[in-house]
Amino acid sequence: MSKLLQDVVGELTKLPGVGRRTALRLAMHILRMERESVSDMTRSIDRFRTEIRRCAVCNDLSDEEICPICSDPERDRTTICVVEQVADVLSIENTHQYRGLYHVLGGVISPMQGIAPSDLTIDLLCERLRGGEVREVILAISTSVEGETTLFYLMNRLRQFEGLKITSIARGIGFGDELEYVDELTITHALLNRREIE
Amino acid sequence: MSKLLQDVVGELTKLPGVGRRTALRLAMHILRMERESVSDMTRSIDRFRTEIRRCAVCNDLSDEEICPICSDPERDRTTICVVEQVADVLSIENTHQYRGLYHVLGGVISPMQGIAPSDLTIDLLCERLRGGEVREVILAISTSVEGETTLFYLMNRLRQFEGLKITSIARGIGFGDELEYVDELTITHALLNRREIE
Repeated sequence: MSKLLQDVVGELTKLPGVGRRTALRLAMHILRMERESVSDMTRSIDRFRTEIRRCAVCNDLSDEEICPICSDPERDRTTICVVEQVADVLSIENTHQYRGLYHVLGGVISPMQGIAPSDLTIDLLCERLRGGEVREVILAISTSVEGETTLFYLMNRLRQFEGLKITSIARGIGFGDELEYVDELTITHALLNRREIE
Repeated sequence: MSKLLQDVVGELTKLPGVGRRTALRLAMHILRMERESVSDMTRSIDRFRTEIRRCAVCNDLSDEEICPICSDPERDRTTICVVEQVADVLSIENTHQYRGLYHVLGGVISPMQGIAPSDLTIDLLCERLRGGEVREVILAISTSVEGETTLFYLMNRLRQFEGLKITSIARGIGFGDELEYVDELTITHALLNRREIE
């Protein structure tokens, strides 16, 4: 087997979900791509890895010291939506329904994986709240066991800020979900939190 | 969204089977990798794309003018196994059962996809056979409609070489396959080509 092919297959298996077979398929695809297109791709990967940073305010990924959302004067500075990770910010931004700020925790508390509260950006969040400008914190944390632990921990920490409204995103049956396939905990939650139809 | 992140996500979606969501997941993984590990990966992709070539004899991928298999004096030069693509060579090599040479066609004849016999390395194969050293050609082509067309075309072209044995890999029920789920054509083939148990 060609050394160059062997190398590239070995390197590509560093990516998550890429085994030897997939790596080989990717390599054959790369071979069919224009040379310039390939070098554009590798250059953008290198630049991303070396130049990207964390926003000093919200911990989201950013090209600058402060990310575009935190520095946007149009955003509502009285509301912070707390999420686990960068991808969650993008999911919420895609709805175009939220005009407040974000705070990226960088994960959830997980004793199993050795992630303690101090590994998350909770202190940074508290610092932001000390300014007194923020009136509501929306906790948009996933409903896993670790997520619930994190939620509980955050609630305790945030209680020190008097007058601060703490909310959590609604749990329920998603649009398009068939009741038959929804888990019992979600159905129970959805029933308990039922709303009168106006 | 950060421009650097946007760029890398856009570039990664050039890869087959990678949508925006997967690209984002890959980007976040790249962020957790060591910088040096990332640059090793991108460098190996670039080198692979710019330096890899086709073996002048068998058309397999190669670092040199002639690939390691074709230049290996230990290989049996009287047998050539004809395969569609590079990955097939690796699959056969992994069995450690074949000691002959290979010939990579570079695809199969497909009028639907506009692939004519002249797009494949059939002329190169005929040239190799003109030397007179080769005594057997094994056709290891897939059993798709295009594969069968290619097989038929190759048989016709190879008949000109007197005394050349032309064989095809055996079709049958694979090890571990359950008869219940095997298609009828394969079962028919396996029945017709049944062997006496010695």
